[in-house]
Formats: sequence, structure tokens, C-alpha cells
Amino acid sequence: MTTTAHAVQPERGFSTAEFEQRLANAQALMKQQGFDLLLLTTEAEIRYFSGFLTLFWQSPTRPWFLLLPAHGNPVAVIPGIGEEIMRKTWISDIRTWSSPQPEDEGVSLLTETIRELLQRNSKNAKIGLTKGAESTIRMPLEDLERLQALLSNCQWQNCTPIIRQLRMVKSAAEIAKLRHICTITSTTFAQAKQLFHIGQPLDEAFRAFKIAMLQNGADDVPYLVGGADQGGYGDVISPPQPTPLAAGDVLMLDTGAVFDGYYCDFDRNFAFEHASDAAKRAYITLHKATDAGFAAIKPGNTCAQVFQAMQAVIEEAGGGSGGVGRMGHGLGMQLTEWPSNMLSDQTVIEENMVLTLEPSMSITEGKIMVHEENLVVHADSAEYLSQRAPSELPIL
Amino acid sequence: MTTTAHAVQPERGFSTAEFEQRLANAQALMKQQGFDLLLLTTEAEIRYFSGFLTLFWQSPTRPWFLLLPAHGNPVAVIPGIGEEIMRKTWISDIRTWSSPQPEDEGVSLLTETIRELLQRNSKNAKIGLTKGAESTIRMPLEDLERLQALLSNCQWQNCTPIIRQLRMVKSAAEIAKLRHICTITSTTFAQAKQLFHIGQPLDEAFRAFKIAMLQNGADDVPYLVGGADQGGYGDVISPPQPTPLAAGDVLMLDTGAVFDGYYCDFDRNFAFEHASDAAKRAYITLHKATDAGFAAIKPGNTCAQVFQAMQAVIEEAGGGSGGVGRMGHGLGMQLTEWPSNMLSDQTVIEENMVLTLEPSMSITEGKIMVHEENLVVHADSAEYLSQRAPSELPIL
Repeated sequence: MTTTAHAVQPERGFSTAEFEQRLANAQALMKQQGFDLLLLTTEAEIRYFSGFLTLFWQSPTRPWFLLLPAHGNPVAVIPGIGEEIMRKTWISDIRTWSSPQPEDEGVSLLTETIRELLQRNSKNAKIGLTKGAESTIRMPLEDLERLQALLSNCQWQNCTPIIRQLRMVKSAAEIAKLRHICTITSTTFAQAKQLFHIGQPLDEAFRAFKIAMLQNGADDVPYLVGGADQGGYGDVISPPQPTPLAAGDVLMLDTGAVFDGYYCDFDRNFAFEHASDAAKRAYITLHKATDAGFAAIKPGNTCAQVFQAMQAVIEEAGGGSGGVGRMGHGLGMQLTEWPSNMLSDQTVIEENMVLTLEPSMSITEGKIMVHEENLVVHADSAEYLSQRAPSELPIL
Repeated sequence: MTTTAHAVQPERGFSTAEFEQRLANAQALMKQQGFDLLLLTTEAEIRYFSGFLTLFWQSPTRPWFLLLPAHGNPVAVIPGIGEEIMRKTWISDIRTWSSPQPEDEGVSLLTETIRELLQRNSKNAKIGLTKGAESTIRMPLEDLERLQALLSNCQWQNCTPIIRQLRMVKSAAEIAKLRHICTITSTTFAQAKQLFHIGQPLDEAFRAFKIAMLQNGADDVPYLVGGADQGGYGDVISPPQPTPLAAGDVLMLDTGAVFDGYYCDFDRNFAFEHASDAAKRAYITLHKATDAGFAAIKPGNTCAQVFQAMQAVIEEAGGGSGGVGRMGHGLGMQLTEWPSNMLSDQTVIEENMVLTLEPSMSITEGKIMVHEENLVVHADSAEYLSQRAPSELPIL
């Protein structure tokens, strides 16, 4: 079996220089904000600073920790089962405990390591935790409380803003991976006529698409949702039912696939044999809204402005809200990342951000349509990473 | 395209009666332990009590909440984007907010709903959070702290033991789903000769296996790890490299695939053309260790006893530790669940638990082998859900 994606596959992983740069950027922000240490517990954050890439995060049993000191290199405090793979990264200081061990799931070792990194001077030390929006802490809360009690003379503060600022702007190597997975997905959507047909149960259509994605070079398709119904669909996050595709259906697949740990996130709409005028009009409106959003993407503009540009097109066409709550977001190591294209998000767009444009609208009662494209921000414009959808609803 | 799994696919979802039973079981334990309310935030827990099944959890942007009161039905407090799909479940009381809204990401609505469920009598109310082993809280910690400040007259305590006790014992419908995904995976492993060959890059072998899993009826393969090397492999959680498979390699794939939100988790080992005597001996030892573990599985025995039964076989053969930290675990809505087959886990085995047996050992310096089978516990014995691996290392 060979993969058929047209793009040349970028190298996997990142150079040590790139990790050193990420660390230096983090430490500069830590210094500005007075952090002595960051304690990272989540997959994306640990991978961002270490390169530790594994599907083993699927198992909720064991916590994993990466410590970023104010000076010097990160220190990994991890279960023994991960030592060999962590040794393949640029991280050299790796401390392990035998896990599972619920009665002391790394807490003693973590406490001791933090004390050492604070040079036995933990009084009033400011330790960062990812406590803010779109973040979680991936360790049992009882264990975190125990850790904080053991280090009760430290201040524990939110470091999500630092992580957010760093991860929102992508490196050239990150953009290459994002471009590659977008190309694979565009190639697969271009096979729609071979993959989808009237009479095919929707869940089989999804299965065929997922298999084609793998054949075309995706590492995985962790996110594939959508719907199909006469003249539109009812919601956009359901698993597919076995209902057969029918003439007049609008089929939508929204795809979050990964290459080397980086996501695409865009959808495509197709009709079978014919489509309602309302569906055709909604498609054209959303296509124009995407154009308007794209034109508003440049460094210095805000996400709120991008939202307004799209919303103006939809309102002019008399379209109601699709209920999604925003019209696109950041994209990278996670399916969705900061920022959000919405009125309340005043994030200023910067060069090398990777974003989605995702306008949606209601078509008729209970039927909506969603468009989505992925793009990278350049010095004074934007570039689509997804192959731009056709300007009229494709009829298969 | 048709699916080729031999087993008849069980019905998707669960009856309302099953959700009512789960709720009644939870409320009985809540009463025993004095809980007035449970606040659930994680995918498995919310799905367990509501049936809410979506891949949308891949997006970290929005938190989701399910409240279990001491009396009456659960109440969902969720982002508007999920309302339509939540309406398809048995949950009738659904409160939504427009999300994303990081400045108040559901916290006010959640506070108000909790006050209402506590009948405006929150003083000293005991609210459960999944704070214990193998659990996390899936909401920003700052938001949890704000919620706790708004309800500062409540006691916030760990309810993981309740969730653990309920989820460890499976219903007939859950076992049917687990049996089905195990059968699909066994069917796919039986195609090994067609799927794997010398000269094939390891990552292409993984890709071929994953495609066959989908063709055989798996909904998804969120977890596929393993390795291949001369006479054994170095670690068991790495993504595959493009190194070509060679004669004398031992190939292992460890598969966490899902059907309707339920996981299998077992591996298989194969050699190409020939294998070292050490690898063959390790295989036989681990096969016998699995037999010993299986014989020790019956209601009333402990997980520690199952571990000891396996460990005794490995020690008698002079095998060292594989470094995995345990020899199997619970299985269900997550790839790994409580309990653990290890010396310190005194969990008593009960009828209708679904468990893995996962003995591992070192073969030579830096080379290990892992076996794994899945089983369901009956009244006085166990039954394999995975098709038992052959007793000698298969040579392809």
C-alpha cells in the first residue's frame, strides 16, 4: 500500500534549536511576569516543550509532568513506562516513578524536584499552572491539593496567558505540518464522487472517508463529525447514523485529521442530484462570508473584526445564527485553539498565526449550514492552507 | 464497501431504563456517603449518566457539566452548540449558555443551577467532584475556584470512589459492545499474513492494520502503538517509525479500538521468518502467565492475587520486569480504567467486571515483550472477549 497525497511529507519532529527557542521565549515571558517555574500537565503543553509524542495519553491512569524553570532546561517527572520514549527527545533530565501508584502518584517526586529547581528557596516562589480559558490540569485534583499543601509557601498562579501567546504563533516547521495535513484532507475531499453515493448509509460514508484519509497519508482522523439531510443538517457534532444518503440531501463532513501531532479542521458540503434553492443560497452566502473574513485577516486587525466582516455578509443575506457561538478559531496541536473569531475576542492577529474561518447560518427551521477553511497569516495578507471550496454547492 | 466482522453488531446506545438504573445506583451510594450533588465534567462520566456521545470533546474550548442531584433526574448545563444532540438523550432538563464566553464560561449558569437543585439550601451541602485517582476535572481551574467561591458554604469532596464502583461493573449492554469491538480486533489480527510483510515500513504496517480495523467495523482506532525489532522491541507506547520490517523482527501492535464508545485493549506479537530462542521462550512464558492470571480471575479474589499468579510464572522462568508497572487493568469507556492488576491493588473482583491481563517481561537488555487479553468475569470463572492468542509465537 502506498500513500497518494500529492504533497511531499515534511520531516517528523522538530530540531533541538526549535525547542531551545520555545523555551527561551517562555522564559522571557516568565521573567516579565515574575514566574519562577511552570508546572505543565497536559498533552499539548508537554509536547510543545519536549517533543514527547505518544497516543498513550488515551490512558487516564498516569499523570505526566514537565517543569520549566526560570533558567536552565526543562525537567520531566514521569511514569517509568515513558522513560525510553522521553529519552528520544531533547529532554535530558528525566525523573521517573513506578506507576500506577495511586497512594503517591508522583507527588513526592514532583515536590522534591520542584524544591530542587527552586534551589531550596521556595518561599513566595511563583509557580505557574495552566488555570485559564481552554485549559485544564491533567492530574487528580486531590494530588494537586496535596502538592500545594507540601509547597504551601509558594504562590500558584495562572500561566495560560504565556502558553497562549507562544502557541498562537506558529514556527515554519509547525506551519509545514499544518499545510501537509490540510493538503491530505483537500485531496481526500476531491475524491468525494468516488467516496459518497445515494443509498450509502451515512456512517459508511464517514467510514469510507476516514479510510481514504489514512490511505492519503493522514496519521489519524480523531475528529470526523457532520450530518446529512434534506436541504441542510440539524447539528454539527453528532456521530453519523446509518440513514442512507438520498437525492436532495446536503452532506457535510467536518474533519480534524492529524499529521505528526498537528491538526487540520475544515469541512465540505455536497448535495446529491439536486438541492433546495435555500441550501444553494446559504452556500453562496457562507462562501462570500468566508471571502470577507479572509480579506479581514491581516496583522493588526482583531478577531472581532474578522467576525464582523463575516457576520455583515450573513446579515445582509438575512441569515440567522448557526448557534456555533463563533466563526473560527486557532488551529495547531489541538483541533481548536485560542483565539476565537467572535465579537468579544480582541486578540490582534499576528504573522504566522494559523486560523480557521467558520461561518455558519440557519437555512430553515432546524437546518443549518457551516463552511470552514484553514489559513496561515503572512506579513500583510493570508494564505489558505485548505484548497478553497468551490463557490457554488457541489452536486454529486 | 461492506464491513466484514463476523459478529452481529449490537444495538447502539442504551435504553432509558439502563440510565435510570445507573442513576439509582449512584443516588444510593450518594445517600450512603452523604452527597447532595455530584458535579461531573469529564467525557466518560457525562456519557455514562446521559448517553451524550460525540467526538466534539476533542475541542478543549468549551466545558460541559452534568449535575446528579440526590433526588430526581440529572441536569445538563452545556454550551448551546450541544443542545440538539443532548436533546436526543434521555436528559430532559438542559440549560445552555452561548459559548465560547471565557469571561463567564458557564460558571454563573452552573452556580444558579446548583443553588436551585440544592433548593436554596446550600449551607454545608456536600458536592462531589471527581478528584481521585485516574480522574481529572475538565474545566479551567480558575473557573472551578470561582464556582467554589460563589458556593463557599458548600463542602467540595471527592466522589471518584462512587464513579469507580459503578463503572467497574458492566451491564449486559456494555459487555455486548465490549465483546463486539474485541471480536472486530481479533478478526483483524487474524488477517496478519495479508496485512504485514518483510520490507514494509512499520508505519505502513500500522496504517494497513488501522484501515482493516475500520473495514471490519471498528468506529475508530484511537490507540495503536507498538514496535518491531530483532528479537523484541524497546518500548510499547511509541508511534511507529518508517523502519522496514525484517526477518527476525518481533512485531507487536497494541490496539485500543472503539465501538459505540467502548474500547478493546489487547495486543498481538508476530515474528517474520524466524525468531530468536529468547523471544520464543518469552512468548511461551507470557502465554503461561496469562493462563495463570486467567485461572485466578473469579469473584472474591483480588487484583493483587491475579498479579501474583502471573508474576510467579514469570519469576519461575527467570524473567525480569517489563517496566509497565502493572499486569492489566479495567476496560470500558476508556482504554484503561480502575482497577489495576498489581500487588498494591486489593480490589475484589466481581461478576461482570471487564479486565485485561497484560503480563510483560524483559527478554534481553533493552528488549521487552508484552501479552494482553481481554475478559469478562462470570459468577465463578472468566471468559475471554479477545480470541486467545496462539500458545507459540506466530511466524509470518
